[in-house]
Amino acid sequence: MDYAEAKGYEAVLACEPQNVYYLTGFWGEATVVIAPGGASLIVPALELERAKDSATDVGVIGGQRGPDMTNKLKEAVGSRKALIDNVDVSTFDRFASFLTSDLSADPQAIMSAREVKDAAEISFLVEGGKVMDKLYGVTAELLSPGIDERTVAAAVLDEMVRMKADPPAYVSTLNPLIIASGANGSYPHAYTTEREMERGDLVVCDYVLRFGGYVVDATRTFAISSASDEMKRSYDAVLRSQLSGIEVIRPGVKTDEVDRATRAPLAGAGLEDLFVHGTGHGVGLDVHEAPSIRRGDQEVLKENMAVTVEPGVYVKGRYGIRIEDSLIVREKPLVLTHFEKSLVYV
Amino acid sequence: MDYAEAKGYEAVLACEPQNVYYLTGFWGEATVVIAPGGASLIVPALELERAKDSATDVGVIGGQRGPDMTNKLKEAVGSRKALIDNVDVSTFDRFASFLTSDLSADPQAIMSAREVKDAAEISFLVEGGKVMDKLYGVTAELLSPGIDERTVAAAVLDEMVRMKADPPAYVSTLNPLIIASGANGSYPHAYTTEREMERGDLVVCDYVLRFGGYVVDATRTFAISSASDEMKRSYDAVLRSQLSGIEVIRPGVKTDEVDRATRAPLAGAGLEDLFVHGTGHGVGLDVHEAPSIRRGDQEVLKENMAVTVEPGVYVKGRYGIRIEDSLIVREKPLVLTHFEKSLVYV
Repeated sequence: MDYAEAKGYEAVLACEPQNVYYLTGFWGEATVVIAPGGASLIVPALELERAKDSATDVGVIGGQRGPDMTNKLKEAVGSRKALIDNVDVSTFDRFASFLTSDLSADPQAIMSAREVKDAAEISFLVEGGKVMDKLYGVTAELLSPGIDERTVAAAVLDEMVRMKADPPAYVSTLNPLIIASGANGSYPHAYTTEREMERGDLVVCDYVLRFGGYVVDATRTFAISSASDEMKRSYDAVLRSQLSGIEVIRPGVKTDEVDRATRAPLAGAGLEDLFVHGTGHGVGLDVHEAPSIRRGDQEVLKENMAVTVEPGVYVKGRYGIRIEDSLIVREKPLVLTHFEKSLVYV
Repeated sequence: MDYAEAKGYEAVLACEPQNVYYLTGFWGEATVVIAPGGASLIVPALELERAKDSATDVGVIGGQRGPDMTNKLKEAVGSRKALIDNVDVSTFDRFASFLTSDLSADPQAIMSAREVKDAAEISFLVEGGKVMDKLYGVTAELLSPGIDERTVAAAVLDEMVRMKADPPAYVSTLNPLIIASGANGSYPHAYTTEREMERGDLVVCDYVLRFGGYVVDATRTFAISSASDEMKRSYDAVLRSQLSGIEVIRPGVKTDEVDRATRAPLAGAGLEDLFVHGTGHGVGLDVHEAPSIRRGDQEVLKENMAVTVEPGVYVKGRYGIRIEDSLIVREKPLVLTHFEKSLVYV
């Protein structure tokens, strides 16, 4: 609300489930209306009882979809000038059509508060990191010549869900995990296929999980029994790159500095052109959230932001390498994942 | 493009991954620009090689995020008046800021074509239905007094992924599957918990899976060794309701008629007030897409639309019941899931 008030708005509306969860502890189909005097959680009938039982610090109002719901939203917002989170255009237009006051969308309306994590959020991220370490343990045990990518994915998801974590809904990839062996690894966002591992393959294992609502994102690259000298040299450069990026992270540093520190070892090894994606991104209730860590980004890191550092190199038709941790920004960063980062042969 | 031209637009832009996949066969971060003379798939560097290898009938253009990408998008759209799919407001504003011509967002820009499925899409849905049937087989074997919801979810996901399907990214629920036992079943969108099943519980198992890109959505409700007479009567009413809804589905029928046919048996049993959600929805590349089947909806069903019918009753603090199939609209509907619909005791 401070963010909105500073911009001259009198109410904030949140519809993205991540924001609704952040504000109320309830994850589902709902709109939160924050206004001076309190917050309301307005839900369709199917979510009413669950919202009442799981939302905190908020009045819960149920409505029938259609005019009844519209009236309840109008009543909660009143004639206040309002900000709404980053909804889709048709949702925005619908709200704008029935509210009597100005409405503006702003992705930062709630995200500005979400970027810095509190102690409870960090404890979920730490626990999620422990689950992630276990998943790489499972992966290392399973990977072997002849096993296919999808079989590994099935076992990892099974273990993830048993450990009280879930695959987060991330729409930019078709499959919930990336397990990219051999030439498939040269696609940073490879599909999970039925390709069987061969000796001499590298295997990029990029996993995301949600624990207590919060996302941990990590990547390890394994070698199936052996790796070529070129692969080993490239792996070492990516590892130096990743450590170099983490090394400079502290409160007050610009994200562009992290990007430059990460790129330097790759440039030194003549591999920078093979690093075709961003250096990192915030994690939290979304898989990708603010701050972004890319060339030229000027956001200043703050204590207790959660970010990834994930350099990689991608050699078309042959292999890929990526190493990624999620970490909490501190004077000495708190890295959430501890699984071995030197090249593991399986 | 026909849809856009009929509305006076000269180009269509698609950013939603589902629409990009529908138009090109590539699933990832990208924008498709359709204009007279052809279509372009414009992707960031990290997606370039995978897009080239998996997209069909489209020219693939790679760009560096930022001004380079912006220029490539501007060039592809030119000065054409354009429609864009249902992107978030910040994406819309970004496009509107650099395009020189009119831009309007319209959820139907691509969805109008997606609603009716072709033979290839239907074959994925049919195969997905077979996977779904297997998942209920796995569920029936596993469910027993003492097993907890999360353990069942882990095993079902494991089997799903082994069978070449994946949990779709559906952001409105925290967990990828709904396995809601006992009182948890009274929440239509229950969280998956560690609650252990008890004799006399009903267990609502609502699964979604994506096969070949296409989503099948189904629900079965099981009884743990026994059910009360009230539960049996309610179950029978929900089953009659679901069959009654399917019975009226054929090309030319309004979705409101399907809703009414589904409600009638519940009203007859005095249970209509406990049916707190919509009757059904389209399925395809999204878990929920057009057409919607709710009270008052006036859309007319067409041959080869794919929809769900999913009545339920929810008794606060005690139990829930839901039965759902996905089906293809035909003179005689092609139901995709065949697992037993009378109450299965496990």
